[in-house]
Amino acid sequence: MKNGLTKPSENAIEEVSVDCVMIGFHGDELKVLLLKWNEIDWSIPRGKIYRSEQIAQAASRVLKETTGIQDVFLQQFHAFGPANRYQPYTEDQKNRLRNNKAKNDFHEDIISIGFYALVDFEKVTPNLTSSFQWCKITAIPDLLFDHNDMIELALVALRKDLRYLPIAKLLPQKFTLREMQKLYETILNRAFDRRNFHKLLMGYDFLIKLPEKKVGTANRSPHLYQINLEKYETALQDGISY
Amino acid sequence: MKNGLTKPSENAIEEVSVDCVMIGFHGDELKVLLLKWNEIDWSIPRGKIYRSEQIAQAASRVLKETTGIQDVFLQQFHAFGPANRYQPYTEDQKNRLRNNKAKNDFHEDIISIGFYALVDFEKVTPNLTSSFQWCKITAIPDLLFDHNDMIELALVALRKDLRYLPIAKLLPQKFTLREMQKLYETILNRAFDRRNFHKLLMGYDFLIKLPEKKVGTANRSPHLYQINLEKYETALQDGISY
Repeated sequence: MKNGLTKPSENAIEEVSVDCVMIGFHGDELKVLLLKWNEIDWSIPRGKIYRSEQIAQAASRVLKETTGIQDVFLQQFHAFGPANRYQPYTEDQKNRLRNNKAKNDFHEDIISIGFYALVDFEKVTPNLTSSFQWCKITAIPDLLFDHNDMIELALVALRKDLRYLPIAKLLPQKFTLREMQKLYETILNRAFDRRNFHKLLMGYDFLIKLPEKKVGTANRSPHLYQINLEKYETALQDGISY
Repeated sequence: MKNGLTKPSENAIEEVSVDCVMIGFHGDELKVLLLKWNEIDWSIPRGKIYRSEQIAQAASRVLKETTGIQDVFLQQFHAFGPANRYQPYTEDQKNRLRNNKAKNDFHEDIISIGFYALVDFEKVTPNLTSSFQWCKITAIPDLLFDHNDMIELALVALRKDLRYLPIAKLLPQKFTLREMQKLYETILNRAFDRRNFHKLLMGYDFLIKLPEKKVGTANRSPHLYQINLEKYETALQDGISY
């Protein structure tokens, strides 16, 4: 519902937006990228859809414009709205949002199409402005709009997509099998037996064992692995069982 | 883009619709429900979203209003648009569509949110009006709007959802293991070894073997099965492997 705060571009579709749950993996934890509006208000990155583009193009343009991040794996997962998308605002909050200095205009779209993006945490983080902050998914504060619900549903979608999507995009270019196992365990919120999981992974031929080992780990120096992208794509088309 | 043919309800969101791919299983084949606009034009059921409802409510209301079908399993799978959603119409086609006697108003929404529904073919079919017709997914004609693309993507989504969704809703209440295997094979477009598939299915405890046998089949009379819904729900929450 419009409330006078809206300032849509002429080419943008009224009342519809894209919202992006940016997911990174760092320190054995999934993290989500939050945009700071002011000392109190946070949201995920979002923006409008222009009439001349596809929804997926809008999502990737919005990400680039707001965060500077590009070439990430973006997946549409759910459309939200229109009823009950917004909690009523207090006058204080309205004023804060109207006067916010963040790049985001304040627009209340009654329908939003949610995307999640899988990003390489280490590659992306150094280029982020101070308006952005990674937040552990286990400790997300109260967000603006229905963004808490969106993050929750993005994780449900990610779990469902796990067999078919390039989850390895969340890993650094070289990684240990332990890191890969931890990533699956974190997303699925369940533990795997180490031997079985490794056997399962090695059953696919997309993992390349490197001569190098990871240094700096406490007890032993585990082997590093890399992904053969072509074979990985094939495995994903058939669905990776776990 | 509006073209003068649009007639939105006051409460409906402009330029956004829901479109429903209704999927049934009959004679070892997946079928999709098509709406006949006239001798030439066909589409899938679709309608508007009211501001007072959630998108999923809109989809189920639209289905009920257009087809009379209710209480079906509806799954949102993708939002389409806005660029290039429509082929240009010829003047002839525009006139045909404007004058169609079907219940659907002609509205060109630049964004559409796609749902698929899993329906029990035998239960639903007797109540359909003559405006509707089931069509094999292998023989879908050229449809209005981007509905051919939608059907294709609905099937991709269904394949992905197979582990988590109540696929058994596509089966009659009592079914043979062969029918269940055929359903999986049809959706996944791949063959399973009969013994392995049965072993896999029986590994879950949601199948109830009935004392009755299916009669009227050529060689032998296979046992009929039923689903224990509670156990089935639990299995779906963990994900059914195949």
